[in-house]
Amino acid sequence: MERKITYITRELMEKMTALRREFHRYPETAWTEYRTTWRAAQELKKAGFQVFLGEEVCRPDSRMGLPTGKYLKFCEARALSEGVPSGVMERMQGGKTGAVGILKGEKPGPVRALRFDMDALPVQEAETERNQGYRSLHPGIMHACGHDGHTAAGLGLAHLLGQRRQELTGEVRLLFQPAEEGCRGARALGDQGWLEGADFFLGGHIGIGAERLGEIVACTHGFLATSKLDLQFRGRASHAAKAPEKGRNALLAAAVCTVNAYAISRNGQGDGRINIGRFTGGRGRNIIADEAYLEAETRGDTGGINRFMRDSLERVARASAAMYGVTCRILEQGEAGTAKSSPELIRICRKAAESVGLGGLYRETGSFQASEDAATLMERVQNAGGQAAYFMFGSPLAAEHHQPGFDFEEEVMGIMAEFYSAAVLGNFCTFGA
Amino acid sequence: MERKITYITRELMEKMTALRREFHRYPETAWTEYRTTWRAAQELKKAGFQVFLGEEVCRPDSRMGLPTGKYLKFCEARALSEGVPSGVMERMQGGKTGAVGILKGEKPGPVRALRFDMDALPVQEAETERNQGYRSLHPGIMHACGHDGHTAAGLGLAHLLGQRRQELTGEVRLLFQPAEEGCRGARALGDQGWLEGADFFLGGHIGIGAERLGEIVACTHGFLATSKLDLQFRGRASHAAKAPEKGRNALLAAAVCTVNAYAISRNGQGDGRINIGRFTGGRGRNIIADEAYLEAETRGDTGGINRFMRDSLERVARASAAMYGVTCRILEQGEAGTAKSSPELIRICRKAAESVGLGGLYRETGSFQASEDAATLMERVQNAGGQAAYFMFGSPLAAEHHQPGFDFEEEVMGIMAEFYSAAVLGNFCTFGA
Amino acid sequence: MERKITYITRELMEKMTALRREFHRYPETAWTEYRTTWRAAQELKKAGFQVFLGEEVCRPDSRMGLPTGKYLKFCEARALSEGVPSGVMERMQGGKTGAVGILKGEKPGPVRALRFDMDALPVQEAETERNQGYRSLHPGIMHACGHDGHTAAGLGLAHLLGQRRQELTGEVRLLFQPAEEGCRGARALGDQGWLEGADFFLGGHIGIGAERLGEIVACTHGFLATSKLDLQFRGRASHAAKAPEKGRNALLAAAVCTVNAYAISRNGQGDGRINIGRFTGGRGRNIIADEAYLEAETRGDTGGINRFMRDSLERVARASAAMYGVTCRILEQGEAGTAKSSPELIRICRKAAESVGLGGLYRETGSFQASEDAATLMERVQNAGGQAAYFMFGSPLAAEHHQPGFDFEEEVMGIMAEFYSAAVLGNFCTFGA
Amino acid sequence: MERKITYITRELMEKMTALRREFHRYPETAWTEYRTTWRAAQELKKAGFQVFLGEEVCRPDSRMGLPTGKYLKFCEARALSEGVPSGVMERMQGGKTGAVGILKGEKPGPVRALRFDMDALPVQEAETERNQGYRSLHPGIMHACGHDGHTAAGLGLAHLLGQRRQELTGEVRLLFQPAEEGCRGARALGDQGWLEGADFFLGGHIGIGAERLGEIVACTHGFLATSKLDLQFRGRASHAAKAPEKGRNALLAAAVCTVNAYAISRNGQGDGRINIGRFTGGRGRNIIADEAYLEAETRGDTGGINRFMRDSLERVARASAAMYGVTCRILEQGEAGTAKSSPELIRICRKAAESVGLGGLYRETGSFQASEDAATLMERVQNAGGQAAYFMFGSPLAAEHHQPGFDFEEEVMGIMAEFYSAAVLGNFCTFGA
Repeated sequence: MERKITYITRELMEKMTALRREFHRYPETAWTEYRTTWRAAQELKKAGFQVFLGEEVCRPDSRMGLPTGKYLKFCEARALSEGVPSGVMERMQGGKTGAVGILKGEKPGPVRALRFDMDALPVQEAETERNQGYRSLHPGIMHACGHDGHTAAGLGLAHLLGQRRQELTGEVRLLFQPAEEGCRGARALGDQGWLEGADFFLGGHIGIGAERLGEIVACTHGFLATSKLDLQFRGRASHAAKAPEKGRNALLAAAVCTVNAYAISRNGQGDGRINIGRFTGGRGRNIIADEAYLEAETRGDTGGINRFMRDSLERVARASAAMYGVTCRILEQGEAGTAKSSPELIRICRKAAESVGLGGLYRETGSFQASEDAATLMERVQNAGGQAAYFMFGSPLAAEHHQPGFDFEEEVMGIMAEFYSAAVLGNFCTFGA
Repeated sequence: MERKITYITRELMEKMTALRREFHRYPETAWTEYRTTWRAAQELKKAGFQVFLGEEVCRPDSRMGLPTGKYLKFCEARALSEGVPSGVMERMQGGKTGAVGILKGEKPGPVRALRFDMDALPVQEAETERNQGYRSLHPGIMHACGHDGHTAAGLGLAHLLGQRRQELTGEVRLLFQPAEEGCRGARALGDQGWLEGADFFLGGHIGIGAERLGEIVACTHGFLATSKLDLQFRGRASHAAKAPEKGRNALLAAAVCTVNAYAISRNGQGDGRINIGRFTGGRGRNIIADEAYLEAETRGDTGGINRFMRDSLERVARASAAMYGVTCRILEQGEAGTAKSSPELIRICRKAAESVGLGGLYRETGSFQASEDAATLMERVQNAGGQAAYFMFGSPLAAEHHQPGFDFEEEVMGIMAEFYSAAVLGNFCTFGA
Repeated sequence: MERKITYITRELMEKMTALRREFHRYPETAWTEYRTTWRAAQELKKAGFQVFLGEEVCRPDSRMGLPTGKYLKFCEARALSEGVPSGVMERMQGGKTGAVGILKGEKPGPVRALRFDMDALPVQEAETERNQGYRSLHPGIMHACGHDGHTAAGLGLAHLLGQRRQELTGEVRLLFQPAEEGCRGARALGDQGWLEGADFFLGGHIGIGAERLGEIVACTHGFLATSKLDLQFRGRASHAAKAPEKGRNALLAAAVCTVNAYAISRNGQGDGRINIGRFTGGRGRNIIADEAYLEAETRGDTGGINRFMRDSLERVARASAAMYGVTCRILEQGEAGTAKSSPELIRICRKAAESVGLGGLYRETGSFQASEDAATLMERVQNAGGQAAYFMFGSPLAAEHHQPGFDFEEEVMGIMAEFYSAAVLGNFCTFGA
Repeated sequence: MERKITYITRELMEKMTALRREFHRYPETAWTEYRTTWRAAQELKKAGFQVFLGEEVCRPDSRMGLPTGKYLKFCEARALSEGVPSGVMERMQGGKTGAVGILKGEKPGPVRALRFDMDALPVQEAETERNQGYRSLHPGIMHACGHDGHTAAGLGLAHLLGQRRQELTGEVRLLFQPAEEGCRGARALGDQGWLEGADFFLGGHIGIGAERLGEIVACTHGFLATSKLDLQFRGRASHAAKAPEKGRNALLAAAVCTVNAYAISRNGQGDGRINIGRFTGGRGRNIIADEAYLEAETRGDTGGINRFMRDSLERVARASAAMYGVTCRILEQGEAGTAKSSPELIRICRKAAESVGLGGLYRETGSFQASEDAATLMERVQNAGGQAAYFMFGSPLAAEHHQPGFDFEEEVMGIMAEFYSAAVLGNFCTFGA
């Protein structure tokens, strides 16, 4: 890719690379991004941003799919041992991760919110020649989806904007979101008000829907709307030989729920999805099981179709429980909508891309073919009259997303930062003006 | 079987045989025993009994499992063409079958109720050498359970009691019950009050639990309590390709109900049974089915276990309907309890048997291993302080009950009438005295 | 619709109308189109065509979803009573319906096959003001999908081509196909060789995807590929109380099959459909059912997806049978592919439409959103190197297709005949030449 | 209970009590009875028995339901730290637990085998006033079924027989069996030949079917025959949104298996049982699950009924797997038959009981109402022409079997040892002579 460098210096590229590798070595799963949050906050502060941390970032009640208290404690201890100061930890304790940085220009202008996700996955990283020096130090956890790169690119952007603050108009909000995986964090971030008054919103992902370095593809077909639900069945134990009739078989109810969840009707309006991804139940071979748990998810081409799937699943779950005289609690563990990028913003961003020599591989339509927590934020901005867009940044991959050998070309972080900064700083950015 | 004849004359035996063969030629299924009722009433009258017919016999609202109005009309027309006077038919129209005959002695004494069932089965009779001359004239209908013999024996008994009226004390009620198959008629007979004040009750069956002519076995292990239920699922039709999501799939709900009915828990207190014996649903291959029907039955060693099975089935049915957004109506089509013969009455009846030379093959314990509508009547008498017993009368069979080749030795009717008359007329019969 | 008449005269329009109404009065369902076939053959002969009938038209072994022999006999007797000569009937007996007419021009030219479907539906026609004079004379049967119009238009075309034979080049084959409903007849027609050497194929439907008279819309999105399967489960009967363990429960196996058929996986490549539209099983409430029948269908956006659905259904059916020790026979009752109209032929047909003043409402893309037996024929022609197209002819409808009140504007038959004749006779029709 | 002491001295009673409390403090679950085995072997040696240990006791290949290698290692390390010499441990490593002691009399006589089970349960013991001083030292493990008492009584018997060796005729084999819970050990013990040539076999249990100290009840109604099976379903993972059709859903197959396992037919010959007591499956919410595990058990009044249940379960499991294209491995984890005590031996044992003043509460019929691994050994002896009996020894209980507060009256061990020694040493014991 030949192009003149506009904003990103070699020095900044090296900083992003170092940050990305640091995040990669210390991966943290959803709601335990203590070390990552602390480091992001440090860099934002260095770059001159006003920084927010802890309870201020994600509304505690709105967080979905929190891990157990025991696991949170384990991660907090680990983060302390890996450098997080105890004063900072105090503010984050109990899964209050995520950071926000705000920078205001001297002249009036639009409010722009950009979102970067920070969480890793429960995947054991493969040992490759490539990742020597930055392979994950946390057993069973890995940045296998590139969020380390997203965070590093966001911090690179912060430094760049800090350096060129005199060019900035209006306000920029950099949102470092926890718990994107499972679509668990965006709602809590939005509920804390960080999108209020936002004129535009940008988000993006490395290596999906585009393979060549330099490709920037607007996601226009939207995401699959999704709901993540945990189903808890509670019954009554009994000896399976002496008095099976006295039991209330929670495991059997959950099995009936599973089979019938997949039997939910197809939909003439578009595609839906259903999955029961985990099932655990029962205490022992000779006991009528008094409890069972399912991890389920629904999806849909549209919010309406996902709602149809979810309503159907809830009906199936409650009826399965009633069928065997057990109870069923339904716990929401995540959700996302199916926002489409705003057409006008896509055209504006083309100009931004062209202004920094990135217009050649810019495409105005593309499909993500999965769910993204960003959709929740995009819908919030669009419903309030703003514009929102989501971009896929091309990169060759060492292995597919979520695979143990996943890795990307680090130069893509430069492209992200360059493109975002052009969108923020360029004079075509007088959105809506 | 050698024994001295006490009550039954050759002439009476011939009358019973002729009656049985007449009933066999004109078999009528549950609630359509128009011709059988008319003939029974005629004979009862001839024998000097006070006769009841039509609405007086079975309480209309309490009848279960009535056939369709169309089928009733068809059978009424057939019965008229086979001799039933229109005046008699008027009283029975709409499935008001069954007859009761009452005879009172001149001296005070106990009230004794004896029950004889009259209905045939939807079975196509085989053509055998034996049944030449009395093979069923009604296509697809047959006396394949011996109720023709029961009715004839009951009428033989009526004639005998009529002849020996001077020996009779107290009161005798001969109950000719419709709709025993499926346990549909006894409740309605009982609800009309025919067991009020009954000191004892006797009933019996040909050829179950005993194979030798002359065997008389008291049923002490009781019957399987049972419930017969029809389940009607109603949903909403929709085109299966264009808009499956708009349908409410009654057929699928019924299938889920079926599978889970069989999955009802075993019971540590005794045996239960469940069956879905018929399933019909749907209008066409490419339509989401808007209706489905199941014919179900439950059974249990005890009334409690049958209640457990039935309650579980109803819960499964309602939950299956709720699961797919359809409705489910549950219609009671039959039921019977699990009465055990009263021990004192069994001992009294032994004496009656011995008095007429039938003591040799009399057994005081036996098991019926099926359900019998008589149980409902027995429980009613026993609960009111009376005694009740049920007997199995041995006979070789040409084929199993309910099979197309079924037939029994007609002499067994003589044994039944002899035994019953001894129980009614003998001086050991001062029951409760 | 104002346009100059090119081919269709008032006289011809009246003939088509009379024919359509005659077919409407004598509707015949799949494989019983005896009278319709006879009349079509008569008209083809009058028009100068070489006519084929009986076994020559549809290969007997390839016919799917034949009715019972008893129903065929009933329909044959009815057709005889409605005028079909016994000699003609002899050739068609046993469901050998369908007619083909062939006309050759004097000069060489392409072979063109046009297909018209003839069967009616098991729907009871409503009594409306409009259909006075031509309402169905066959109880429970009705031309509720417009095939009467298709057949009449095809015969109108035959007369027109016969009149203008001197303009004809090459060869025209008019295929009057039985059993389009349920996708049962096209395979047998194709297997008899009527498409061999065909350079192009045309087919069409009244009133789908277009509402205005004069609209002619090419079906380019293809049809839903589909398979129609009957599933026969056979087990062993047993008394449900005395020996349930000796039964092999065919009804239960079919219920398990039903539930799991709907649970077949969604498909990331496109939409699939599954339906169990009818379920009948069992002999009586207290008998373990020894037989059960399901009527099923699968569909898919592509042949591959339908194959996935069908293979999955067959696997589910066989496993359900194995689960309960019963057998399962799978009978193919219909199938159709998902052919797309050939782009070049669509453009050629536009010219034909324009040449007769029908270009104004001609559209080159459209979607049928259902299955069509024609797809089987189209694929056969296309796979052999020919071109095929399917058109939807707009008409206002009195009620939806397959509804009791269905009716269309008869003028649409004129448009069909005019358009087809332009495509056959026009000089732009030197397809592939 | 007043009775003259015949064999058991106060000293021996104290020894048994001390041993029982030691076993209670160091409970070990199935196939990890390292410390218990070692101590039993020590005592047997002290008593003068020839002792067998390690591979000689249970045939390694015949052991069922072995724990994981990791857990075995953990228990081996624990046992070493609790006193087991490393030389002894070497012989037992890998779950080769169990001990056999043999003592021969000087005069010829019958071969008698007595079986004592040694394993504890995965139950966390409650803290009570009573168990102070001997409460379990192993977290989550407890002798909650009294096998500590069985083992101690068996060792008490060994000491007594050692002391009275001059009275002994023939041969005594004391079998200290591992892994009775789950019916996992008896087969392996039998396969090693310890019952070859046995003229009689005795076994028993504390506190089942009898509550008063001194009650000795012969188990004549037999046990429930049982099979313990693990079902492993393996499929193929796939992304639940992008390519569900590429997955092979092991979790769904296991759910179908679960529902249909409960739907296995009732049995007219007697009671059966089925239970799926544990279900674990899947890796994550958005992944089609590639594996699932079920822990199942079947039972039956007779071996034939259990075989019916087990065969049906295996058929259901294999069909469920086939239905979704996954594989199913069925692993046998335990089994037991339904032996009935030999009537002659029961009468002989009555005399033995009477000879030591224990005749008063001896009962010749009783029902165990559960499964027992001893049945496997009893059937082996009986099938080879020997006699076998099983006794229930009454004791008040602090809580039900398998409950955290379970405890029994230790004096019952004296009664067991006294009764067994009378059966072995008394002159009425010339069984079969």
